Amino acid sequence: MSKFTEELVRLGSIVEQEMVKFLPQKDEYPPQLFEAMLYSALSGGKRLRPIMVMKAAELFGMPYDKVMPTACGIEMIHTYSLIHDDLPVMDNDDFRRGKPTCHKVYGEALALLAGDALLTHAFATIAKNSKIEGISYEAVLDVIENISLAAGGHGMIGGQVIDIATSGKHISKDTLYYISSHKTGCMISVSLWSGARLAGASRDELEKIKLFGEKIGLAFQIVDDMLDETGDENILGKPVGSDVKNMKNTFVSMFGYDGCVKLLSELSSDAKEIMADFENGDFFIQLTDFIVNRSY
Amino acid sequence: MSKFTEELVRLGSIVEQEMVKFLPQKDEYPPQLFEAMLYSALSGGKRLRPIMVMKAAELFGMPYDKVMPTACGIEMIHTYSLIHDDLPVMDNDDFRRGKPTCHKVYGEALALLAGDALLTHAFATIAKNSKIEGISYEAVLDVIENISLAAGGHGMIGGQVIDIATSGKHISKDTLYYISSHKTGCMISVSLWSGARLAGASRDELEKIKLFGEKIGLAFQIVDDMLDETGDENILGKPVGSDVKNMKNTFVSMFGYDGCVKLLSELSSDAKEIMADFENGDFFIQLTDFIVNRSY
Repeated sequence: MSKFTEELVRLGSIVEQEMVKFLPQKDEYPPQLFEAMLYSALSGGKRLRPIMVMKAAELFGMPYDKVMPTACGIEMIHTYSLIHDDLPVMDNDDFRRGKPTCHKVYGEALALLAGDALLTHAFATIAKNSKIEGISYEAVLDVIENISLAAGGHGMIGGQVIDIATSGKHISKDTLYYISSHKTGCMISVSLWSGARLAGASRDELEKIKLFGEKIGLAFQIVDDMLDETGDENILGKPVGSDVKNMKNTFVSMFGYDGCVKLLSELSSDAKEIMADFENGDFFIQLTDFIVNRSY
Repeated sequence: MSKFTEELVRLGSIVEQEMVKFLPQKDEYPPQLFEAMLYSALSGGKRLRPIMVMKAAELFGMPYDKVMPTACGIEMIHTYSLIHDDLPVMDNDDFRRGKPTCHKVYGEALALLAGDALLTHAFATIAKNSKIEGISYEAVLDVIENISLAAGGHGMIGGQVIDIATSGKHISKDTLYYISSHKTGCMISVSLWSGARLAGASRDELEKIKLFGEKIGLAFQIVDDMLDETGDENILGKPVGSDVKNMKNTFVSMFGYDGCVKLLSELSSDAKEIMADFENGDFFIQLTDFIVNRSY
């Protein structure tokens, strides 16, 4: 394992521990709801979004432990989106991260409600960030508004709507970019933005970190599409080929595998160029390489 | 129409106008999502929760136009909960307020996402309340946290989970009270609490208004159960008898119709007693009577 991957694992396990603190416990009432929420929220994953919140705060001189409520809130929103995406009425997926999906274990009604509850609980969790010393109320309110917009109809959900509406249909490149930048890019971008905003980054710095997020967010989605065609099911923890099965438009179907490699190279060099403006941007340079080269 | 009902209609139409301002427009992208959101959010309803936010602010000396973002955000959460409740995997209802339910018009996938988007957008909307003069950042953050808790797994969703889990089963009175106080009561109570908190009510006043909310919230649910058995479909805008169809435990099935009348009388007198401590509490005294005597 490279030193960078070790760091990701270390940070990921910090996220896991903090998530446990911010989520309801299994013995609270109603237990079946909290069991379903915890099943999905604590089932591993790379925790890239909360790690981005943490490291973006550090980039602007704030220790990551000051932004953990926001980091965990964003991961709750990510988890809810996966639970709802996996439902039969959406992508109808049976496995995620090597385990049966939430509705396969708890039924569709409880999975729907567990997703709703995670999304709802995320905002109470993020609001709690205002109680940490050194964090301004105004910054937390900005973060809540921006996360809500990034996760909502003009962001992640908008991307999901068009993704579903265009399955099996011929779409333009613009539409493919719209889907990816919204479905995946918005939440990655707002994760970086939120960490930076809480740490007191300037307007100019916030714009830059957001743009960096858009580049690596798009790269992340392209690699996702490539892994769905050529990845190793045992490493991915889910069946490959679901995009073809669901007749999804992907970067691979639009640009071919080699076209994707070329796009990734451009996005990676753009992202690194943006990050070159920051001192101590090493982690994000390595993160860019990790996202482009990942096999899971 | 009584003077009080006229006032409710007047306030309801203000809510309607403000909702239009805070929600995305139909011509924004993706239009089908925003159409589905607007279909449900602007399909009438009594707008009791946002009106409670407005009038609770007034009770503590703040003009209602200062709290409209919070009032509208709470109504968005209420609308999302109705859309998800109506889905086939939940209550499977075809009509609501005299119109086909969201999923009957837009399909299940889009209805699910429209609900998600309304819930998400609610928090951006409430966060915007901090930009209104005279409103403290800290109060808005408190309101966000409390609304999130009232709508989440320890509140409304918790009640919904137990409601579904116990359909067709014998339950205790305690469980019936848990379901009602959570599924309906929490959001009514937090509506009043939020208006009062934004207006600068004291801790003691906040406790009282919350308790008042719990009393009328329970009364509201009891009347809902009674109307589902004896109401007029044309006035209600939805078929009656769905509780029996779904084998739901209700106050009518538990206490009988006469038992419900007695409970309502107690709750009503408790609620009015709490409100007697406030000057200018007239609206809420009349609201209590309205809730107890309503036919829709």
